[in-house]
Amino acid sequence: MDWAAVEWADGELRLWHDGRTLAAPCTEDPGAALRGLLLPMLAPGRVLTVIASGWPGVDPIRVPCRPVQPAPARDLDPQIRLHPLPGLVQDRPADLVVGPVPRIGGVLAARPDFDGVLCLPGSPSAWVQISASEVVSFRTFLTAEILSALTSRDDATADAGFVDAVTQAMSRPAALAAELSSARADLALRRIGPATAKARIAGLLIGAELAAARPWWLGQKVVVMGEGWLAECYAAALAAQGVVAERADPAQAWLAGMTAARQAI
Amino acid sequence: MDWAAVEWADGELRLWHDGRTLAAPCTEDPGAALRGLLLPMLAPGRVLTVIASGWPGVDPIRVPCRPVQPAPARDLDPQIRLHPLPGLVQDRPADLVVGPVPRIGGVLAARPDFDGVLCLPGSPSAWVQISASEVVSFRTFLTAEILSALTSRDDATADAGFVDAVTQAMSRPAALAAELSSARADLALRRIGPATAKARIAGLLIGAELAAARPWWLGQKVVVMGEGWLAECYAAALAAQGVVAERADPAQAWLAGMTAARQAI
Repeated sequence: MDWAAVEWADGELRLWHDGRTLAAPCTEDPGAALRGLLLPMLAPGRVLTVIASGWPGVDPIRVPCRPVQPAPARDLDPQIRLHPLPGLVQDRPADLVVGPVPRIGGVLAARPDFDGVLCLPGSPSAWVQISASEVVSFRTFLTAEILSALTSRDDATADAGFVDAVTQAMSRPAALAAELSSARADLALRRIGPATAKARIAGLLIGAELAAARPWWLGQKVVVMGEGWLAECYAAALAAQGVVAERADPAQAWLAGMTAARQAI
Repeated sequence: MDWAAVEWADGELRLWHDGRTLAAPCTEDPGAALRGLLLPMLAPGRVLTVIASGWPGVDPIRVPCRPVQPAPARDLDPQIRLHPLPGLVQDRPADLVVGPVPRIGGVLAARPDFDGVLCLPGSPSAWVQISASEVVSFRTFLTAEILSALTSRDDATADAGFVDAVTQAMSRPAALAAELSSARADLALRRIGPATAKARIAGLLIGAELAAARPWWLGQKVVVMGEGWLAECYAAALAAQGVVAERADPAQAWLAGMTAARQAI
């Protein structure tokens, strides 16, 4: 393995090298954290190429564009040839996507002729329109961040209450903040339990997102890339609109995207 | 002074007695915190009536009703005759309001013939329809909680960018989560500073609230009761819709409402 992949996100630096994954908490200086993780693994004099996602101080690339375009190497350490992977920026509507870039690249590496929309649940979630091997446009939503601010840490389930809340929010998106209050009132009055409240709040927020993201899924080929309950919720919400989304594995796509970046240097 | 007023909210117990205000951090047992604050002030054998807002384990009263109806005294301590002030509950749409109850009562104590709507910014904000000395209906919104989850601790200003964002959210409330992402993208790209971003995010959230709360202010006499930048924002957002809201002092109203509760025992 003549290279490594690293991601800086959510206060953590994750390093992938030689089939191993290492992680270190890191809120301020990812360069120091990367040296701390990587240098003990390198023989003296050995120089390693590193692809870095989420690296600070990197100008994003304007869409439409190919998603994976590693920047020139930076002087971080004599043994580390660091190529940051830029984020993608959109002028109208103003938007920026950074963390999902390797996963977007991974889908295109596996399916160069993909023509459709990637839905990437997360903080933020991203809807990415892809055509002719390029990202044409995208939109991010702070849904998961609002959800975690309003609810407990439990998982939500994509049950009937969830789907009802999706439908409700899509038909009356303006009433979102009031419906959120109702769900919390029912929880405070013990008319519903925390899991039901979270499912309803998740349904309201994801329904409002679907209402705003309609051009990204209506009549489109959609791939939901994510894992865990949040991705299940997005898939169930789309299914309730008659959209049978494909699923893709985010870890696999991430590595495929980073590998594509390595090959593009 | 033969009585005291106490409020349990936001992890703190605040006691008002003899013109003084004392506070103690309190997340679990407000009874113990109240004894700790109050008993050192009482001569042996003296018994004090205490009106308590936000007290746990008190059944709320169903609207329409008079807002201030203290519950029977509880056995907390031989020297403390504690009368909790119940919250208000509404069945359709399901909603619950607790903290603002004394302030609502204070307005009615000062103006028994008030007929209109109280807008109480806060966590949550509440819109309260009042007629014939009763709370007829109300609606709460988690706007301020979402705002603090998404932005820094700085104050927002009700400037032109704020009002533009209010207008934008009111005309397209479904696009809220996407517009919030745009504001954060502009901040991340340093196209705008943190204060401008917060004003825009506050404008989007308050605009969405106004869109959902339209029956509570359109053609109504509105009183905004709150202080600081959040109340300024609500007043400015309403002014942009042609609603010149009266302002009322929340601390004064709180004490007037607690006094009314004392007199109602």
